[in-house]
This record gives sequence, C-alpha cells and structure tokens, in this order.
Amino acid sequence: MLHDGPSLKIYATKDDDKIIQHFTDQITAYYKTKRAIIHNKGFYCNGISAVIFNYLQEHGVRTHFIKQLSDVESLCYRTKSIPLEIIVRNLVAGSLAERLGIEVGLKPESPIIDLCYKSDELGNPLINDSHALALGIVEKNVLEEIYKLSQRINEILPTFFEKIGIILVDFKLEFGYLSDGSVVLRDYICPDNARFWDLETHSSLDKDRFRRDQGDISKGYRTIYDRLLAMKVYD
Amino acid sequence: MLHDGPSLKIYATKDDDKIIQHFTDQITAYYKTKRAIIHNKGFYCNGISAVIFNYLQEHGVRTHFIKQLSDVESLCYRTKSIPLEIIVRNLVAGSLAERLGIEVGLKPESPIIDLCYKSDELGNPLINDSHALALGIVEKNVLEEIYKLSQRINEILPTFFEKIGIILVDFKLEFGYLSDGSVVLRDYICPDNARFWDLETHSSLDKDRFRRDQGDISKGYRTIYDRLLAMKVYD
Repeated sequence: MLHDGPSLKIYATKDDDKIIQHFTDQITAYYKTKRAIIHNKGFYCNGISAVIFNYLQEHGVRTHFIKQLSDVESLCYRTKSIPLEIIVRNLVAGSLAERLGIEVGLKPESPIIDLCYKSDELGNPLINDSHALALGIVEKNVLEEIYKLSQRINEILPTFFEKIGIILVDFKLEFGYLSDGSVVLRDYICPDNARFWDLETHSSLDKDRFRRDQGDISKGYRTIYDRLLAMKVYD
Repeated sequence: MLHDGPSLKIYATKDDDKIIQHFTDQITAYYKTKRAIIHNKGFYCNGISAVIFNYLQEHGVRTHFIKQLSDVESLCYRTKSIPLEIIVRNLVAGSLAERLGIEVGLKPESPIIDLCYKSDELGNPLINDSHALALGIVEKNVLEEIYKLSQRINEILPTFFEKIGIILVDFKLEFGYLSDGSVVLRDYICPDNARFWDLETHSSLDKDRFRRDQGDISKGYRTIYDRLLAMKVYD
C-alpha cells in the first residue's frame, strides 16, 4: 500500500510505473472529524471518475488513468505528486462564500480558480502564484501549464454534465509528473471532491448532502452514476 | 473627519480634491485587541512616510502625497479606494511563516506578493487574482498596473533603506484612483505597516517590537527617522 486514505487506498503493482486506486465506502468531512460509511459509494465514485477521466482523455487532456479493473478499482500510471490543489469554481459555494462574504450560487463573470498548498499539516492553505514559486513547489512554466490544463478541463466538463441535467459547480484537480517528466491530471474527480447540482432543482448531488445531514447521501452519487450510464457514455 | 482609525485620522479640506492625514501616537495590534500610546509615534510615522513618498515620486511612482503640513500632518490628494492590500515580502516574516510553515528570515528566490481583500469584517482575507476579478473589485488592466507599480516600488525602496543600514523586510501598499481616474499609491508606509530590520543585528525596528513586548517601542521608529535625517534626504 502506497497511500491509506479513508476514501481511497493506493496500491503498488508489479509494474513500477503503475498503481491501483481502490475506492472505499468511507466518507469524511470537516478535516476528517465527521465520518460515515455510505453503501456503494466506492463503486459510484470509481465509476464516475472513470467516465470523467476517459472523457477528458478523448478530448486531449492527458491523465494518469489507464482503465477500470473492477467495481471499486482502477489502474493508473504512477505519478510524482505536485503538492498543489486547484479548485475551479463556476458557481460560488462552500467555504469561499463565507470567506469572501459572497452569496452561495452566485455565478462570477469568469471562473474562480483557487490555488492551495497541499499539506494536511497546514490545512491546505490558499496560496497564490508567488507563494508557489517562492516555496519552490513548481517552476513557473509548470504552473502555467497546470492553469492551462485546468481551464481546458473546465471547457470540457461543465458542458458534458449539462447534457445529463447536472451543473458542475466546482471541482478539485491535482497534477503530477509521469516518469518521462510530462505533467498529467492525477487523483480522481467524483462527488467527494466536486460539487454537482441538479440543473432544475439546484439540489446537491455530492458530499454536501453528508456535510449537512440531508438524508439519503448515496442517492446523489447514484443519480450522477445512473444518468451517466443512461447516456451510454459509460461502458 | 473622513476616517477615524486608531493611528490615522483623515480630514476633509476646503478643497474637495485634497485631504489631511493626521498621524496619532496610538498603536494597535492583533485586530486592535492590543493597544498602547507610543510617545512621538505620530511624528516619526508622518516623517518616515513623507520621506518615502517623496522619494518614490522623485523616482517616477505617482502617489497621493502632496506635502507635510506639520509634525503629524500631511496633505494628500483625495483618492477613491481600491479595496485591496498588496503585501510585498522580501524576507519571510509574520503570519506568512506560520501559515506556510516557512522559517522566519528566509529569502525567497523572488519576492512574495500577497493580495488581500481589504475588509475589516472579513479579516482582510488573502485572495488571488481570480477572486479580485470575480468580486468585481478591479478590472484586469488595473490589477496588472497595481502589480507593476508594486514591483517598481520594490525595486526602489529596499536599495534606498540599505544605504542607511536597514533591511526592508516587507511592506503593505494600497492604491486608489485620483479624480482623473489614474491609479496612484495612497495610504502611508511606516513601521506600523512595514517591517524594518537593522542590517547588522537583524533586530526589529517596527511594530513587531510592540507585538512581542520588546521593551522601548519608540526606539525602532526613532532609529529609522534619525537615520533618514542623517542621510539628509529628509528636509
């Protein structure tokens, strides 16, 4: 085992260049102080993320994803982590609303892009480009590439989800280096680290249901999964 | 009175386009929870800021500053505030060190520039360019001009202070629009909102002495003032 997170475990394989992501049914929030088991969450997240990563690859965005191995496992290339989190926000929600005194649901003229320093110890603080460069986290050209990739991903995904009646409110991206040094999207994208709202009702289909104790939490995950399936994108 | 801060009062004048800054002897820290009176602080701050703003103007940086009126008062153009604070950091100190887990005194490869949303209510949160644009605080071209001006100021001031044996560790800048719409530096620069270290001993000559209860607080302010005077830049 290379990583033992509550909702994702990562295992090494015989091939040094490849890893296995294993999605669990555990859900956590508020810096892991709130925890629960959501039946089939690992299955939904693995499936949703696989569809998204496949779709991005078909549209020219290079990722670490290779293929699904089972209902809760996917095979990926091993990447060297760039300790940054990019949060792309098409609508204002979550901590940002409170932090900047903006209304939830507000649509900014242009997407908001948060850059965070990935460090559990420091609480993943929001930083800016000058901090990332001063901390030696990335070179300027890599940071520019990451922003370009993030913008490209945000050109592709919201339109895709709109087709199945879902607003992609915000999502978190992580990047890493393949063994040849090229920068690719890593990690995963699912309702654990992205916000999905029903286009008509604006009801939450993601982890916010768990944060706010809004009844059947798996329902949101299942709704997204089922709509992707019905679209026959999923195979 | 247009503004009634603990360390600075701003008064209107008969001329709608001009205001008077009045520097007091009050000092506050930790969101105004710690307060004291420092004898002659207003005099030192008014003098130090006047030297700095004069020097910047001589070097082509446009500011709101017109002239000193008395020991604690200066005449300035009235500006429309841009609610941003730019903190330029040549060495790591203060909250940044703790926030990002970096050692105090570390010199980053390139200066760190913090962009903060000036809002007492929200605690002047750190933001990035995309937040400033999304909040409608500034247009992109104005933000670029502010960064350019900040960088230019940081090319001028550290060299100037080095001549009198002082390291300009970091400083806060505010900008505003003159009545003709042009962007100028406003506010003030003094040991209340900038860090000055003695070049040889690295001892603090600024408000950090007050934050940390390091004995004679006015001594630091007086040292900077006296060295500027001795340099005969001050008149």
